[in-house]
Amino acid sequence: MYETVITLKDIQEARERITPYIRRTPLLDQTAMNDEVGCRIYLKPEMLQYVGAFKLRGALNKILSLSEEERQRGIITSSSGNHAQACAFAGQLLHCPVVVVIPEDAPQIKIDNARAMGAEVVLWERTYDARWAKIAELVKEHNYVIVHPYEDPMVMAGQGTLALEALEDLPDMDTILVPIGGGGLISGVATAIKESNPKVRVIGVQAAASAAYYESRKEGKCVGVEPLATVADGLSCRRASEINFSVIEKYVDEIVTVEEEDIVKAVRVVANRAKLVAEPSACVGIAALLAGKVNVRPDEKVVSVLSAGNWNIEDIGRIYVGEKGRSVT
Amino acid sequence: MYETVITLKDIQEARERITPYIRRTPLLDQTAMNDEVGCRIYLKPEMLQYVGAFKLRGALNKILSLSEEERQRGIITSSSGNHAQACAFAGQLLHCPVVVVIPEDAPQIKIDNARAMGAEVVLWERTYDARWAKIAELVKEHNYVIVHPYEDPMVMAGQGTLALEALEDLPDMDTILVPIGGGGLISGVATAIKESNPKVRVIGVQAAASAAYYESRKEGKCVGVEPLATVADGLSCRRASEINFSVIEKYVDEIVTVEEEDIVKAVRVVANRAKLVAEPSACVGIAALLAGKVNVRPDEKVVSVLSAGNWNIEDIGRIYVGEKGRSVT
Repeated sequence: MYETVITLKDIQEARERITPYIRRTPLLDQTAMNDEVGCRIYLKPEMLQYVGAFKLRGALNKILSLSEEERQRGIITSSSGNHAQACAFAGQLLHCPVVVVIPEDAPQIKIDNARAMGAEVVLWERTYDARWAKIAELVKEHNYVIVHPYEDPMVMAGQGTLALEALEDLPDMDTILVPIGGGGLISGVATAIKESNPKVRVIGVQAAASAAYYESRKEGKCVGVEPLATVADGLSCRRASEINFSVIEKYVDEIVTVEEEDIVKAVRVVANRAKLVAEPSACVGIAALLAGKVNVRPDEKVVSVLSAGNWNIEDIGRIYVGEKGRSVT
Repeated sequence: MYETVITLKDIQEARERITPYIRRTPLLDQTAMNDEVGCRIYLKPEMLQYVGAFKLRGALNKILSLSEEERQRGIITSSSGNHAQACAFAGQLLHCPVVVVIPEDAPQIKIDNARAMGAEVVLWERTYDARWAKIAELVKEHNYVIVHPYEDPMVMAGQGTLALEALEDLPDMDTILVPIGGGGLISGVATAIKESNPKVRVIGVQAAASAAYYESRKEGKCVGVEPLATVADGLSCRRASEINFSVIEKYVDEIVTVEEEDIVKAVRVVANRAKLVAEPSACVGIAALLAGKVNVRPDEKVVSVLSAGNWNIEDIGRIYVGEKGRSVT
């Protein structure tokens, strides 16, 4: 489907393209957390991005690279929420109609926000295949441009821009922790980092309940898993994607998984120490440190990407841990 | 007690002094909140400051201006928490012993944090007079330097530095909303703003349950109130202070009060829209906008100072509104 993976140059061009429209998020050293996580921790708080998620970067880069004619036809996508919201926001900003197919059981806040930003929302079955079949049908009818949440080089390049900012702010970082759901974020970030400074360790983190890339690396090929319910719903992923897996195999040093209780704990640590509202998906990097899943030295400079904050904050006092475990299909 | 109020120059000098030690917090435009608050809103998120509160600015400025001999003797202070924590952090950084007298019923997180930062904590009765009598006793014994949380020009000047940053980031701001507790923050901010650009409106906001400055302005002189319980415990204030009142009368255009339910609502709006954990005291500016207590135009650029975020975040799902009302003594 795609003839090339992305390069650092694609990410640099993406940055030029999207800079007028995004917030350059700060990099926050967090000395109050250092002892708990066992290293010198820096947070890249993408919940402070417009729409509350890094996803805006990829959506903007994609839409800004369309022809005027394509932009007038409009775009269509599907996602569990943040990518949908990002496309809606970017479309409204750039006068491009947006249709989003959202799982009917997604958090209400994500649905409401996409609608509030002028997107046409189609609620459809949760399964990936059913949603993309619906998209194929709508594309046939309306000739929309598809903006895939992670299997798209322009989207991957857009997400990678946050790594260029982090490198600017902390040129001597040792390690960067990146959540993996579909794989778009880590594809962009790993490319930006490794093609700028190969000595920086790039570590991907998945929820153990939905660890398709972790299993795929073990198997040496893309495999699917039966994703279990996870508090980190934004990272739910049925199957590793070939294009993202190829980038991950090339550039990601290690993939680790974290359990539900560690994710929940990390959400609270981030709120109480860093004063940031992170959705559980965003906290898997901190969870991995808290659980000792990543080997770090006390003087090691570790960046953790906090990917998003779209979540019903009232839940923070009552999130609980459901059943654990996962099964490879 | 003090022969001069502070000037812009004091605040500029404070900024030079403290810059190496503080986080320059960003100014966050918040388009997703504009409709709700009826203007173009910008947040100054001081919960992202080290120790989670603007108080670090004043504490650092004070300690950095002490002689080497004074610094070795150590400082003493009292506060409901954030000022104590700020003094503890600043003292640790600058190798200055710190004693803090904290009300025995203060939130545990504030006590723990002050101790974790190496301060000697003396838990004492809640009343202002009892605590300051205890301080007088300890000063007599140990010759500590007192760092008052708001009745101190160096502390006021330090707090004002956040306004210089905000002016740099948004030179054409129209209005700035500032919480008033003891009055140190607004004394510094109002001086910085009015001596830089007198056209900017400075509005102070108090919890109706503890509105000593609001009442004092009405009476034309410093008066006390019997402060009722408020979710914005950080703003509790028994009596307007002469030195702060004189600055407020000179430079603050308007003082408004907000009710408990509006503060609670504002905490949730800030969490859900801006993804920031703010303590209730920090949200009175947003509460005032939500409740229509401040006249604003839709195109008006309004900065709201979010002063701090030290709070048990689990409470956000269950904060409730207690009894309202206030009485002038």
